[in-house]
Amino acid sequence: MSQVYGKVALIGLGLIASSMFWAMQRGKVAGTVLGYARSEETRDTARRIGLCDEVCDTAAEAVKDADLIVLATPVGAMARVMQDIAPHLKPGAVVIDVGSVKQTIIDEVTPHIPEGVHFVGTHPMAGTEHSGPEAGFATLFDNRWCLIVPTELSPQDATEKVETFWRALGANTERMDAEHHDLVCAVVSHIPHLIAYTMVGVADDLRRVSDQEVIKFSAAGFRDFTRIAASDPTMWRDVFLTNKDATIEMLGRFTEELFALQRAIRTGDGEQLHAYFTRTRAIRRSILEAGQDTDKPDFGRGQGEK
Amino acid sequence: MSQVYGKVALIGLGLIASSMFWAMQRGKVAGTVLGYARSEETRDTARRIGLCDEVCDTAAEAVKDADLIVLATPVGAMARVMQDIAPHLKPGAVVIDVGSVKQTIIDEVTPHIPEGVHFVGTHPMAGTEHSGPEAGFATLFDNRWCLIVPTELSPQDATEKVETFWRALGANTERMDAEHHDLVCAVVSHIPHLIAYTMVGVADDLRRVSDQEVIKFSAAGFRDFTRIAASDPTMWRDVFLTNKDATIEMLGRFTEELFALQRAIRTGDGEQLHAYFTRTRAIRRSILEAGQDTDKPDFGRGQGEK
Repeated sequence: MSQVYGKVALIGLGLIASSMFWAMQRGKVAGTVLGYARSEETRDTARRIGLCDEVCDTAAEAVKDADLIVLATPVGAMARVMQDIAPHLKPGAVVIDVGSVKQTIIDEVTPHIPEGVHFVGTHPMAGTEHSGPEAGFATLFDNRWCLIVPTELSPQDATEKVETFWRALGANTERMDAEHHDLVCAVVSHIPHLIAYTMVGVADDLRRVSDQEVIKFSAAGFRDFTRIAASDPTMWRDVFLTNKDATIEMLGRFTEELFALQRAIRTGDGEQLHAYFTRTRAIRRSILEAGQDTDKPDFGRGQGEK
Repeated sequence: MSQVYGKVALIGLGLIASSMFWAMQRGKVAGTVLGYARSEETRDTARRIGLCDEVCDTAAEAVKDADLIVLATPVGAMARVMQDIAPHLKPGAVVIDVGSVKQTIIDEVTPHIPEGVHFVGTHPMAGTEHSGPEAGFATLFDNRWCLIVPTELSPQDATEKVETFWRALGANTERMDAEHHDLVCAVVSHIPHLIAYTMVGVADDLRRVSDQEVIKFSAAGFRDFTRIAASDPTMWRDVFLTNKDATIEMLGRFTEELFALQRAIRTGDGEQLHAYFTRTRAIRRSILEAGQDTDKPDFGRGQGEK
């Protein structure tokens, strides 16, 4: 692969930004990568592990002369960061964010974008339950989707270059408008996370089932929930606060459906339950066919468990 | 390992029974294994793939002279099966079930156990989303828990021999009473499954988010739900119908908690969300420490996805 941008600035050095750096290095996607994180501890860690070609003590320093600026902080901090760096951006620079919601970010960030600077919303749908500068790895985006959300500040050529950039990092790209993005993500990601958090919280609260038991027997279905529910608390707080409408709408649909199943259980309506569970099974088959998961009998995790 | 039972009869030849056969073969745990399944198609498949030393056309034939009889049908069919085989059991024989609930099975099955025959409830907490005679594999129970629920028809030596049997199949065993078993399983398994089924059903119902999108972007959290929600519909129908009380009680706790989080989202209470998400993260750490999952950054599934 060849260089897409000369100088890239990563603002925020967590899981996503650090993975972006290692993926840029792997593919020689950028000339120089400068990084900035608000916390001194994070900056020290980044320097120690060789994350970024240079770690700067201010965001202003990092973005100076940058061709691409990546907002990789929690969603709630992006508008403030944008205000801080705005005076230091060069004309023609492109700002992207990597947040999990789009409408709120666009509403809050774009007013601070200076004349002559471009903004494209991006959302790499990849992650692990780990966070911080040491959590990143070069293959995080490989074969994952990165949703591209152009705005009024996205000229066609800037958007296309951002797409080239993400593909050079290993991702597939797809364009979407902000509202639809937020709805899709509420369904495939935000609500599943909220539910997992809730389920793990309930288990933790119970007096009659000991923590020991919950942990010991977690492999029976609960374990996948705990992995999802171990994701970064700040990131997820911001996701729910900034994708409030779609989240609450989808939660309404979810509880409606859950109550219908609860009623079927209470009334002993086996037919309804069986029909429902048969329908959901078909969806799984489609996901396997789409190559988005493994069909190995042990879920491909056998080695880790034994 | 050495032989635990001379003659074993498997009634029902799905994922669990077929895995038990392969695990018995691996460890030379039984002298002879006879199998029976209600469906002719299943019996034919079993014969074709060499599942069991002999596949019988009636349950009566399979259990004749058996030292251990394994009820491995869906929970809802066990009482009827027990009635059918009861006249054919030899004195001193031990019957176990492998169902996911215990109180209902004990209530419905033990009245049909003849004088001089023993019954021990067992629940191997292992499975995949696949079902049927071809889904089994020898390592399914390795390092997984098998819960042992003694009843009034479980003399101490019979219970201990059943425990030896499950350990010879690779599992760890732990004793529990039926009521506690059903509560623990509601928390770590039944409710997570019901929630996953619900979430997948909601996504499938939505008009504004296409099936294509749900499938394409499933890796963002939703995917784990679809795997859980692809489990055998008949088995899970029976689980919910027979563990009704614990399920409905836990569902009540779950929705209460979910509504509290929903309220925090609606009112913008970021502190409450952050505190909740931080607490659930700690539980994940405990599960990793207990060796019940892998901590690899890609969840140990990287190979399957790429």
